[in-house]
Amino acid sequence: MINKLIANIKKTHAPIVVGLDPTLKLIPKFIMDKAISNYGESMSAAAAAILEYNKGILDAIASYIPAVKPQIAMYEQFGIPGLQAYDRTVKYCKEKGLVVIGDIKRGDIGSTSTAYAIGHLGSVTIGETVCKGFDEDFCTVNPYLGSDGVKPFIDVCREEKKGIFVLVKTSNPSSGEFQDRDIDGRKLYELVGEKVNEWAESCMADDYSYVGAVVGATYPEEGKILREIMPKSYILVPGYGAQGGKGKDLVHFFNKDGLGAIINSSRGIIGAYQQEKYASYGEEGYAAAALAAVKDMKQDIEEALG
Amino acid sequence: MINKLIANIKKTHAPIVVGLDPTLKLIPKFIMDKAISNYGESMSAAAAAILEYNKGILDAIASYIPAVKPQIAMYEQFGIPGLQAYDRTVKYCKEKGLVVIGDIKRGDIGSTSTAYAIGHLGSVTIGETVCKGFDEDFCTVNPYLGSDGVKPFIDVCREEKKGIFVLVKTSNPSSGEFQDRDIDGRKLYELVGEKVNEWAESCMADDYSYVGAVVGATYPEEGKILREIMPKSYILVPGYGAQGGKGKDLVHFFNKDGLGAIINSSRGIIGAYQQEKYASYGEEGYAAAALAAVKDMKQDIEEALG
Repeated sequence: MINKLIANIKKTHAPIVVGLDPTLKLIPKFIMDKAISNYGESMSAAAAAILEYNKGILDAIASYIPAVKPQIAMYEQFGIPGLQAYDRTVKYCKEKGLVVIGDIKRGDIGSTSTAYAIGHLGSVTIGETVCKGFDEDFCTVNPYLGSDGVKPFIDVCREEKKGIFVLVKTSNPSSGEFQDRDIDGRKLYELVGEKVNEWAESCMADDYSYVGAVVGATYPEEGKILREIMPKSYILVPGYGAQGGKGKDLVHFFNKDGLGAIINSSRGIIGAYQQEKYASYGEEGYAAAALAAVKDMKQDIEEALG
Repeated sequence: MINKLIANIKKTHAPIVVGLDPTLKLIPKFIMDKAISNYGESMSAAAAAILEYNKGILDAIASYIPAVKPQIAMYEQFGIPGLQAYDRTVKYCKEKGLVVIGDIKRGDIGSTSTAYAIGHLGSVTIGETVCKGFDEDFCTVNPYLGSDGVKPFIDVCREEKKGIFVLVKTSNPSSGEFQDRDIDGRKLYELVGEKVNEWAESCMADDYSYVGAVVGATYPEEGKILREIMPKSYILVPGYGAQGGKGKDLVHFFNKDGLGAIINSSRGIIGAYQQEKYASYGEEGYAAAALAAVKDMKQDIEEALG
């Protein structure tokens, strides 16, 4: 899947991933009203609205981008109906040829991480039938529990030729509280980055590994350091756009081959129609506004990378 | 909910939480066969089997224990049907008067943690209707992203009078890889414990806080240190039984009031019938075997605490 991700990036000339993180505030009123008239004021209405909203955006942007990153929390907040909308969103994205990065940030003790890994990337055998759960192409993983919480994901990646992005230095304001602490002359995020590099080397595709990392666009200096520590890992870079990361901050996340990073924007794309810059599209034009924002993001990154 | 947890512990004289972590290997053949004959070899069959198995165990043990801890990964591995079984298990436990600790280990940037917090502990408003998602009483939280990944959970706890257990020192063999690293003369787990104590003091019920911690039974020395760092926090202690923790290891996790800790056992209880000690119950007696294991665990802990 890392090879497919790279091929998709080359085909679209866009190292971009669009975060499908729907909230009720982002969904146009006409979509929500229709869902409520069909399902009442219920979780099922929220789920139906999310799915319609996502499909509208995907129909507009799918051929311009290589990958999407649905944030499962935004679906999980609506209980079972919300997770059904997540499941259907993943399938719809795959039908469109997009690489799907499930932003699930799971991680637990070994036997439990195995369950997450097979539920999201692998399969279970029931009787003699192989069944797939959410079946994303990649997922994000939290490293706090150490190697034996991460390795079950790597084992499944190796079998399925899928991938993970391990949280190293996250984009949020308080990410330094633990991640920036000094340990034997380096930061915790550097130590985690060194581990990611070990895991990555143990699980290579061609030029890049199935094991990548998450490093926030909001921390470009740390990105530069981590790029060197983990040369074989793709870096998934959240924090561009709504969280404050700029195009010029992104250059150090890439390798000299022009690859090695994929930049995420969520609200900045899917909620573009609510921004002053794209207000002329109106609520009905939310999908066209998202496409315009994708094109602007692509140009911003192209200019930054020179 | 921390007050209800303490009341339930006093009523049952058992500082015990039973982990409802079903795997296909644990489910008796007669239950799985029936589910497959009803639903074919499918995720729905696995989910139906899990739910029947859980209900059997809960009917046997519910009046002897204060709380349960379903591990969501074990359900999530079976996709949407699995998560429906999780949802129904949570509701069934609550009908039985049990405190439900959702072992979900979520944690993300602020806006995303908010979505997890309202999905698992709080509610969303759709139109003018308040809807609840999974509605557990407590959940577990991963602290790697720092305060702004944890605070949304605390905000919801304060509103709903529910609680969280933050991962501090986990029970798995490689937990020390990051958690035991030296930072300014103390370990990372101590630093996280200090933060938990801050959060706990900001969110008190009566004697104890809505903010607790997870510390593995497999690390009793660390438990002793952390007990002192976080006096107001209940400690959820996994790792007893199948993972190797013994009754004598548990004494330092408790406060002088005899409270402050709740010990989890999962496979050791729900899979008791597969152990040599309880083999005479047979597969059909899996629930009675679980009850026998609960009683033995209670006695082991009572003896250890003197």
